[in-house]
Amino acid sequence: MLNKKYASGSHFLGKIYTSNSQKLLFSKKAQKVISKAIEESGFKELGSFYHEFPQGGFTGVVVLSESHVAIHTWPEFNYLTMDVYVCNYTKDNTAGCEKLFDQISKFFEPKRVIKKKLLR
Amino acid sequence: MLNKKYASGSHFLGKIYTSNSQKLLFSKKAQKVISKAIEESGFKELGSFYHEFPQGGFTGVVVLSESHVAIHTWPEFNYLTMDVYVCNYTKDNTAGCEKLFDQISKFFEPKRVIKKKLLR
Repeated sequence: MLNKKYASGSHFLGKIYTSNSQKLLFSKKAQKVISKAIEESGFKELGSFYHEFPQGGFTGVVVLSESHVAIHTWPEFNYLTMDVYVCNYTKDNTAGCEKLFDQISKFFEPKRVIKKKLLR
Repeated sequence: MLNKKYASGSHFLGKIYTSNSQKLLFSKKAQKVISKAIEESGFKELGSFYHEFPQGGFTGVVVLSESHVAIHTWPEFNYLTMDVYVCNYTKDNTAGCEKLFDQISKFFEPKRVIKKKLLR
């Protein structure tokens, strides 16, 4: 049976605009920041796949024990989207999910963040 | 500048209930079905990461040229969630996005599908 104490998952979706498009280029630094934020938010990274596009933007997806993080950057638009989705089967992970979203977001030096929360 | 003709992205999110929990176990067959559906929907797979959990459920994330697919299965609940997110910068990919969602969904022999569309 599904655990009815909480929604089965919490998902934060965002549009993030930055004035520093350099941050949107693929880098090992970005990968490290994402992995560190996952650890510091109390989640466990199981694996990831990153792809760098010809214009320098990147997609990164990270699989967590608790679901996933997905980031798509468009340096040409000073823009990225982010999804942080965690399941809540053993406990309510909503606070950690939002913390993770915010911590990764900071790295991109956002000037505007449109953040939406969905219960899954 | 962002292309203002379309929403910048289309995202279908789903909860899918099946009566065949065997379909929710990790398999090479599931991976192949997902890759084939991506191709047949007109998208391009760039890479993926799959993880099998001890109880047999799996997480699969697939990076597309056009964004990503993410699947999380819970055989113990006869349940999976699916995200199919595509960007619309060069053309409106919404129809292909929904086709891809529906095609992957079929593989899991759903008895109930709760599908939600978000514009990103």
